[in-house]
Amino acid sequence: MKIGILGSGMVSQTLSVRLADLGHEVMVGTRDPNKLTDWVRSAGVKVKIGSFAVAAAHGEMVFNATAGTGSMQALNMAGEVNLSGKVLVDISNPLDFSNGMPPSLSVYNTDSLGKQIQRAFPSVKVVKTLNTVNANVMAYPRKVADGDHDVFLSGNDVKAKAQVAEILKSFGWLHIIDLGDILTARGVEMYLPLWLHLWGNLQTGLFNIKVMR
Amino acid sequence: MKIGILGSGMVSQTLSVRLADLGHEVMVGTRDPNKLTDWVRSAGVKVKIGSFAVAAAHGEMVFNATAGTGSMQALNMAGEVNLSGKVLVDISNPLDFSNGMPPSLSVYNTDSLGKQIQRAFPSVKVVKTLNTVNANVMAYPRKVADGDHDVFLSGNDVKAKAQVAEILKSFGWLHIIDLGDILTARGVEMYLPLWLHLWGNLQTGLFNIKVMR
Repeated sequence: MKIGILGSGMVSQTLSVRLADLGHEVMVGTRDPNKLTDWVRSAGVKVKIGSFAVAAAHGEMVFNATAGTGSMQALNMAGEVNLSGKVLVDISNPLDFSNGMPPSLSVYNTDSLGKQIQRAFPSVKVVKTLNTVNANVMAYPRKVADGDHDVFLSGNDVKAKAQVAEILKSFGWLHIIDLGDILTARGVEMYLPLWLHLWGNLQTGLFNIKVMR
Repeated sequence: MKIGILGSGMVSQTLSVRLADLGHEVMVGTRDPNKLTDWVRSAGVKVKIGSFAVAAAHGEMVFNATAGTGSMQALNMAGEVNLSGKVLVDISNPLDFSNGMPPSLSVYNTDSLGKQIQRAFPSVKVVKTLNTVNANVMAYPRKVADGDHDVFLSGNDVKAKAQVAEILKSFGWLHIIDLGDILTARGVEMYLPLWLHLWGNLQTGLFNIKVMR
């Protein structure tokens, strides 16, 4: 599949390599293509680089892997015309580091970044997922407890969630919990402070939670 | 141990019966003792009833099991003089149901109800715990996955957390994660929206999360 990934940080780099290794045609969208030159030249990286708009136009499915506080601007630069009708996999977190550590959330409670994006781009099928784990766990879930842990899906479009679930399974995800519509994105975004405190406590990002019954 | 439990709802009732069964001298504190008359008369309930102030004075350890939006008022009625120097186990959640379901949080992000209580009552040793599971799981953790799941502790006083951990172990808790100081209470309180969406999804409150590595 042709996949566009918006953002140039570690999450974007990890996921784009993983998706390319799985046979997808990946284009990373960034404000400044030059800053990825060295990374793209390094051995094994088989992804294209473009502007936000060109990467969004390239993708049959598009990932939002930008920093949460810059996501709206990045998506506006990508342009609704290039996203319309497509599945937008929103893996971002609205973390605000402007007051130091630990970060606060810039949107929360009854609202969420996932919901804001869905409101701003009604013709896009937003699916929130993967934001509850670090980049390594997103792309290689078997690195943690042989994959015995959960990832969540939130979104209004059932078919879009099924398509995203297939991508997640190809990464190695075994347990995928469909939380419901995009309202439930607030749940996985507001989980981040607990994730951050666990990360500080465990001294590793290689962890995740499992729902036990 | 003499234990005071503030609040008269299901959480208070479940925990007070559990603690009494474990041999503690329990007094439930409530605004309106009359509304608990039938419950206390029912078979097997061996707890005393008093005002918030009398129950707080009774306890060597005090539980805050009031509804989160009423906790500050209840604790003020209990009185700092009756709480001073004691361990206050804060199991409340700042859930605001005034706009219907799902509830929002009345305090969040860089602050939390646990932290607010610690600020308002600096001479009290606040330990946030148990708020991430329902009353049944709090008191009888082995009902879920034979106890193979996690409960969290947040608080500034290491000795107070150790005392609370002993109570949790007596309930049957096997895995207790000390997240750090009272700042980390924001993590367990902001987890509630995810808990609520999981509850809606699983159609049971008999679940919890386990941190997998």
